[in-house]
Amino acid sequence: MTLIDIPGGSLFGLDNLPYGVFSTPGTEPHVGVRVGESVVDLAAALGDEVFAQPTLNAFMAQGHARWVRVRQQITELVSGDVPDAAVRPVAEVTMHLPIEVADYVDFYASEHHASNLGRLFRPNAEPLMPNWKHLPVGYHGRSGTVVVSGTDVVRPSGQRKVPDEDVPTFGPCRRLDIEAELGFVVGTGSELGTAVPTEDFATRVFGAVLVNDWSARDIQAWEYVPLGPFLGKSFATSISAWVVPLLALEAARVPIPAQAPKPLPYLQEAEPWGLDIDLVVSWNGHEVARPPYREMYWSPAQMLAHMTVNGATSRTGDLYASGTISGPEKDQRGAFIELTWGGKEPVQVGGEQRTFLRDGDEVTITATAPGTNGTRISFGEVNGRILPAAG
Amino acid sequence: MTLIDIPGGSLFGLDNLPYGVFSTPGTEPHVGVRVGESVVDLAAALGDEVFAQPTLNAFMAQGHARWVRVRQQITELVSGDVPDAAVRPVAEVTMHLPIEVADYVDFYASEHHASNLGRLFRPNAEPLMPNWKHLPVGYHGRSGTVVVSGTDVVRPSGQRKVPDEDVPTFGPCRRLDIEAELGFVVGTGSELGTAVPTEDFATRVFGAVLVNDWSARDIQAWEYVPLGPFLGKSFATSISAWVVPLLALEAARVPIPAQAPKPLPYLQEAEPWGLDIDLVVSWNGHEVARPPYREMYWSPAQMLAHMTVNGATSRTGDLYASGTISGPEKDQRGAFIELTWGGKEPVQVGGEQRTFLRDGDEVTITATAPGTNGTRISFGEVNGRILPAAG
Repeated sequence: MTLIDIPGGSLFGLDNLPYGVFSTPGTEPHVGVRVGESVVDLAAALGDEVFAQPTLNAFMAQGHARWVRVRQQITELVSGDVPDAAVRPVAEVTMHLPIEVADYVDFYASEHHASNLGRLFRPNAEPLMPNWKHLPVGYHGRSGTVVVSGTDVVRPSGQRKVPDEDVPTFGPCRRLDIEAELGFVVGTGSELGTAVPTEDFATRVFGAVLVNDWSARDIQAWEYVPLGPFLGKSFATSISAWVVPLLALEAARVPIPAQAPKPLPYLQEAEPWGLDIDLVVSWNGHEVARPPYREMYWSPAQMLAHMTVNGATSRTGDLYASGTISGPEKDQRGAFIELTWGGKEPVQVGGEQRTFLRDGDEVTITATAPGTNGTRISFGEVNGRILPAAG
Repeated sequence: MTLIDIPGGSLFGLDNLPYGVFSTPGTEPHVGVRVGESVVDLAAALGDEVFAQPTLNAFMAQGHARWVRVRQQITELVSGDVPDAAVRPVAEVTMHLPIEVADYVDFYASEHHASNLGRLFRPNAEPLMPNWKHLPVGYHGRSGTVVVSGTDVVRPSGQRKVPDEDVPTFGPCRRLDIEAELGFVVGTGSELGTAVPTEDFATRVFGAVLVNDWSARDIQAWEYVPLGPFLGKSFATSISAWVVPLLALEAARVPIPAQAPKPLPYLQEAEPWGLDIDLVVSWNGHEVARPPYREMYWSPAQMLAHMTVNGATSRTGDLYASGTISGPEKDQRGAFIELTWGGKEPVQVGGEQRTFLRDGDEVTITATAPGTNGTRISFGEVNGRILPAAG
């Protein structure tokens, strides 16, 4: 038996307990929970087939009451002796995509980000569109190209046209960017023709992940009118390997910034679902930005209510992301196009002046939030390295 | 044993053989093929577990060579005696969604439709955006709300704002519309980081379906800037129950209209994949439009090549639709917003003057294409009826 060591100040203590899908040599991917620097194999430790699955979906589909019970079970389990066969050092396991992604939606919920992008993409118009403060603007992304942290990202090729060219050319993206976001994973879905009210957020959403929504700015700028981003975003979207349960985020809850005008009734919340989460963006190992999630204009409960208000179904495994997290300060911007103001104001990365991503570059986004009792909890990381464009 | 009767002139003769998923009282949904007015149970007739599945995905994933062999097997089978237990009258079975939809993409491939919508949505600008003739414009839709023909459609509610109102209001859609489209189902996918060339279309795409992309024009007009349609489209997308194999469409192939400027090399086709398919749109039983698919500017092979040129994966069950099919004539427009010019020029529906959909209205889209030997083949129909808004 093993008594799991949780070092003092661990960001993966008993108030975190994020879920993931891992494998070891000779085993198929199955569900584990992270405790300190260990992964506890839940299929082995709890003897439940639902954790022998290669994704969290079957467990998530069991619903909120079950999530509460399992969290309690795990807390008791890892506070005592755990069978040796159920404990692995995190450094020795391979992490996999934790969820089978159903629909993937990307919102645009940061006022600072939307304003900055508006100024950059449409310099001669109001930065925010008239609808922006009335509804959480969002669009569907490609769920098939959601990948787990650590997956290399091949530089996409496509059509690019700079304003002073007459016609587009084809070739590798020249303005490859990141978007530091928080993603929410739906645990239990809703039926066609019904809307999910804001107050159901906490029982329907299972947890949160870090998202890097890699973005090809030159491809996006040329293609996106009038139907929105498509190939500029669909080549890869990376998520963290660990899903932090919503149950671990109670201490992180804060009011969202004041909303004016007051949103329509279906978007109003009885209890606040702002989240006090601090992100850190590192570029080739050098910290370049600290986006604060607490500054987001629209809450995740509002996003879910909006997404389903027309009667669209939601499903186990739906992933919806916040959109780039940017704060009011320059070093709080979660995308390089904002951080470098369209490439015109390079930032210092180690000894170099940089604007967009070069082949071989690596980006890592981490985040922490308040846990209970003055602790902090970690979201792990979402990491990716750029490979050269394909042949 | 049964010798299946195929009436002379049947649109479901041996040159069609569309696949679907059906059930009878007491059986689970499984795969069948339509022959005349009969459904042949392929699980029973061919004794293959892949047809006992509730979707076509497992069969589609077996690949092109297998699709060719099974079509040959079915042709031989239904030309002779078929076991009684494997034959059902089509009127006595319940049809289900034939595919598990992976990613759903909606293109915008009709020049007439894009021009008309441009004139209606942006009256003071060029109707076609500068990118339109360089790439097939498209966006991701919500795969979770793709439903089979015959599913009722609840009128969506959402935010609507007409230009002379200061703020949006919440309520049922006032401008509920259709879009008559053709959809393509990917049988075998492609890996992350690789592109599918136009010449691989015929071996990767399994078949085609009719699509009605129900559209809430007032919700769409308010929400769609700058990230594209979202809730205005995601409440329901209906597809026909029968998937016509691409193998049945050889006689329907025609050149696409001339493309100028010449597309970039990755969008060029060695062989044409225009399709001579005639659609008919009926509103409460009255024919109101005949959209001609042969007029589409971008071909389905070009759409697939574009969708993957950035390295996005494709997967078994991906569905991509053409966008509204509209021809140059007024009665060839496949959406009511075009047919009635934004509601200003009502059309005659039975004894009434109509613009957008009322509760209780029913829309049926059918289509036929040339088969071999001077025959014609049918796509069946995609049908839906409007129910009043929820709540």
